[in-house]
Amino acid sequence: MKAARIYGIKDVRIEDIQEPDVQSGQVKIEVAWTGICGSDLHAYFHGIGISTEPHPVSGRSVPLTLGHEFSGVVTEVATDVTKFAKGDRVVVEPLIFSEDDYFVKQGKYNLANDAGFIGLNDDGGFAEYAVVDETKVHKLPDNVSLEEGALIEPTAVAFQSVKASNFKAGSSAIVFGAGPIGLLTIISLKAAGATSILAVDISNERLEKAKEVGATLTINSMDESVEEKVASLFEHGIDFAFEAAGVQATFTSAMNVLKKGGQLMILSIFAQPVEMSAMDLVVREINISGFLGYRHIFPEVIDMVAAGQMDVKKVITKKIALDNLVEDGIELLGSDKSQAKILVSSKA
Amino acid sequence: MKAARIYGIKDVRIEDIQEPDVQSGQVKIEVAWTGICGSDLHAYFHGIGISTEPHPVSGRSVPLTLGHEFSGVVTEVATDVTKFAKGDRVVVEPLIFSEDDYFVKQGKYNLANDAGFIGLNDDGGFAEYAVVDETKVHKLPDNVSLEEGALIEPTAVAFQSVKASNFKAGSSAIVFGAGPIGLLTIISLKAAGATSILAVDISNERLEKAKEVGATLTINSMDESVEEKVASLFEHGIDFAFEAAGVQATFTSAMNVLKKGGQLMILSIFAQPVEMSAMDLVVREINISGFLGYRHIFPEVIDMVAAGQMDVKKVITKKIALDNLVEDGIELLGSDKSQAKILVSSKA
Repeated sequence: MKAARIYGIKDVRIEDIQEPDVQSGQVKIEVAWTGICGSDLHAYFHGIGISTEPHPVSGRSVPLTLGHEFSGVVTEVATDVTKFAKGDRVVVEPLIFSEDDYFVKQGKYNLANDAGFIGLNDDGGFAEYAVVDETKVHKLPDNVSLEEGALIEPTAVAFQSVKASNFKAGSSAIVFGAGPIGLLTIISLKAAGATSILAVDISNERLEKAKEVGATLTINSMDESVEEKVASLFEHGIDFAFEAAGVQATFTSAMNVLKKGGQLMILSIFAQPVEMSAMDLVVREINISGFLGYRHIFPEVIDMVAAGQMDVKKVITKKIALDNLVEDGIELLGSDKSQAKILVSSKA
Repeated sequence: MKAARIYGIKDVRIEDIQEPDVQSGQVKIEVAWTGICGSDLHAYFHGIGISTEPHPVSGRSVPLTLGHEFSGVVTEVATDVTKFAKGDRVVVEPLIFSEDDYFVKQGKYNLANDAGFIGLNDDGGFAEYAVVDETKVHKLPDNVSLEEGALIEPTAVAFQSVKASNFKAGSSAIVFGAGPIGLLTIISLKAAGATSILAVDISNERLEKAKEVGATLTINSMDESVEEKVASLFEHGIDFAFEAAGVQATFTSAMNVLKKGGQLMILSIFAQPVEMSAMDLVVREINISGFLGYRHIFPEVIDMVAAGQMDVKKVITKKIALDNLVEDGIELLGSDKSQAKILVSSKA
């Protein structure tokens, strides 16, 4: 079968490899759609997260099939699998971890000390077929499409950040960064009952998209001061800030525009340390929180999409063939900031 | 009457001034004990908070009687005062603010945009008598001494930080800085049911005091690495960190020793910005919170002391006469780090 395998930095090869077989407890999925994630770019451009040594959970090292945001249809199940059957439409929750980890035992599997990803530290979804443990699989209701299924994983990141925050309906929020995670955060905030949702980015195309998915106001921070704009509209500041950009300038702006007693939720991975005024944090009763990934939230996110609460399809800007993953997908996302989510299929 | 009045930086004069009269809604208090606070030192040494211009709430400017941590006995009440009578033993809650402030209307009076202090922006407690609005006064039960009464205000700061955090009984905590606020935080954590309470400071005398008030382990960060010590004793880190030292080194250590999912509560006023790893905050699901002062918590703190849950007297290291406030009090605290809380009385 066809699969996109990562060997190292800037080395992803579309290869013909043997179709995987199901082992005890596993299901085989004919992959329908796989989204390209920012962490795929980090792996490709910078080697971040690549298993050059055998991963402690999977025991696997490169070359490995990339892709962790994928949906598909079950084609085969091991004899001991009872929860899934051939024909089931499913999405994969890609986190892998040891069951005997301290945090896993506490239910916080995203914090496992040896956590990894299907599609980075084990074979993933940029392929015709994928075989995964049934514990990593969630069924999709009939009214959730396979394209939407491929968006459940990044939506889980965004939705979890809203749920992990103190956000409640009737509050105002500002989202820094209108990439896929920022856009899905806007969609999550809208579903959670935000009054105002401000979006900040440096790309007008991304801000257009932000408006399309629910932002009530957009600010291009290259053209105008976020602080001045917010101050002119919100006398006491904004209740919640979601940081999905990951640089000092947006972090500082996020702090500055918060209302006293407000909360800054960080979703982005900052490459550099940030400087902040701890005095300001105390004097204005600010709370800063971070959350890594998600836990126990896939079923809820699937339900939200099924209920029509979150139109996640809107973040898709392109669909490409697996053969063109590198050039038309990963490389394009690295250069063209007007792109949000690109979905990949071996059948496209 | 005798009063210690601040005129400017390093200019506090013990003067004989006219006894104040009660106006509508006010009570006159014969001051028993007044504690010296870190902010008194900030005002004296650096001029921080001094009202050189009329304060928007009090309308007053220097010279003003210093001292905001004080207890005493009511000697006179205005005719329209109904909640207090001559002979009542009381403590003053010194925050002043405009009733029509946005945050005051929401009950968050500590966040009032024009907040100030009795004893900094209006006449305070380093005097024989003080006259304050009855809304700022709380009664002391018979079994709470006037010395303890003078400690309610700093205890409120510490206790509020514990209540504003996510702390619950059965958790571990580490306190950075064993000055008065750090010590009262240890006392509050003990009362709130902490398992381990670690205290970090650079003074062995302060650490001795920390042990005396309830720390289960002390670390002198000049002698050993806080990170290494904690790692050797707590496999997964500590649940809660309370930052009452206010410098980069303690902030960084506090972040480093937290368990995944842990919380850093900042009580101190940082003179400089801090640098932090926002990536670490996300990857380890850390929460950083600040809280300024206190709100609505004096009655509860008084009840806790009355119930014998918090032996706050232990933080007193010295009692001095008002005449010697500057030399034996403020100046001494600026140089002798073995001192914790010094109480002052015009009768001592």
